[in-house]
Amino acid sequence: MNKKGLVFVLSGPSGSGKGTVLEEVLKTEKLYLSVSATSRRPREGEKDGVNYYFYTPERFSEIAAGGGFLEYTTTYGNFYGTPRQPILDAVERGENIMLEIDSVGAVNVKAEYPDAILIFLVTPNVAELKRRLIGRGTEDPEQLKTRIDCYIDEIKAGLKYDYLVINDDVKRCAADVIAIIRAEQLKIKNNIGFINNFKGDNIC
Amino acid sequence: MNKKGLVFVLSGPSGSGKGTVLEEVLKTEKLYLSVSATSRRPREGEKDGVNYYFYTPERFSEIAAGGGFLEYTTTYGNFYGTPRQPILDAVERGENIMLEIDSVGAVNVKAEYPDAILIFLVTPNVAELKRRLIGRGTEDPEQLKTRIDCYIDEIKAGLKYDYLVINDDVKRCAADVIAIIRAEQLKIKNNIGFINNFKGDNIC
Repeated sequence: MNKKGLVFVLSGPSGSGKGTVLEEVLKTEKLYLSVSATSRRPREGEKDGVNYYFYTPERFSEIAAGGGFLEYTTTYGNFYGTPRQPILDAVERGENIMLEIDSVGAVNVKAEYPDAILIFLVTPNVAELKRRLIGRGTEDPEQLKTRIDCYIDEIKAGLKYDYLVINDDVKRCAADVIAIIRAEQLKIKNNIGFINNFKGDNIC
Repeated sequence: MNKKGLVFVLSGPSGSGKGTVLEEVLKTEKLYLSVSATSRRPREGEKDGVNYYFYTPERFSEIAAGGGFLEYTTTYGNFYGTPRQPILDAVERGENIMLEIDSVGAVNVKAEYPDAILIFLVTPNVAELKRRLIGRGTEDPEQLKTRIDCYIDEIKAGLKYDYLVINDDVKRCAADVIAIIRAEQLKIKNNIGFINNFKGDNIC
């Protein structure tokens, strides 16, 4: 009997560095990455089933109503969601899954799939967030202030998570995520079969 | 405010390799090791407070009656126990503690200190245990059989633990223990202060 895969969620306020950390984690960890679904139009070069599953708003709503998403949300009038079935299939195949989603989505995933393991990523402090956002150069001072205010509001969501990882250094941070993945695999509840079959499987 | 230390227990059936794994873990991890107490006489070269705290059986019983041990047991007519206060002191100092004790003791520690994190160490199979015991050359065939029977009986105790580590290779196994230590430090419940103080501590 195959061991089932585990569902991890890497989340945190916008600006915490989820994408960069996940990229670093994937250099050594084999993880199944979920492809999100959306009702927005494909941008130049985006492929259906690769960047997103693209649906019409009507089709998206239909799938959502049928429970086809582990979580979904609307942003600027477009739907975004995490398709349920591909994740359940990967779990059955014994693959570990990583979802990179916002904190509202993360908490919704946990409600739908209580075994999901939520990892909250944050910058060590506001100064570091500011440095990072200014470095990007995509926000004017007004937007910057809004972003920082939102960030501070969102931090509290972390209390609903399982783990906190402080993003002060990408490599150290990725090592933390990898430690969490390993530790979760070692949990007794994920190894009951080994214990119960120890005698039968191993004749001396 | 200092973060409190965590209490880890490395345990498993006799022959699983606890001592060797712990030695490997200590090459990179700074852990507070508990000194056990015993009512048996010191052997040649053993020092009080270093190898054990040596007590008379009467004094041991007195301390036990006063709740001075996190767990204690008798083996071949001698008491062995884990003194409570030095561990609670190390927790307050923010040091992570590692106890290397048998599985009865491990479960008793959890009952007394529910935040303790129990790691169960086992050989991958009975064949490997046999190889290891024969390698030591300290048991005759009769004793060997008894040891193996006890080992198989003890495996079921693992269901009461938090983590299972399979000792197929000492270095990999030590890496697993280190991943568990790291992951436990990252748990939200051990980082509530960071989240609650995020705004106050960090003025931009």
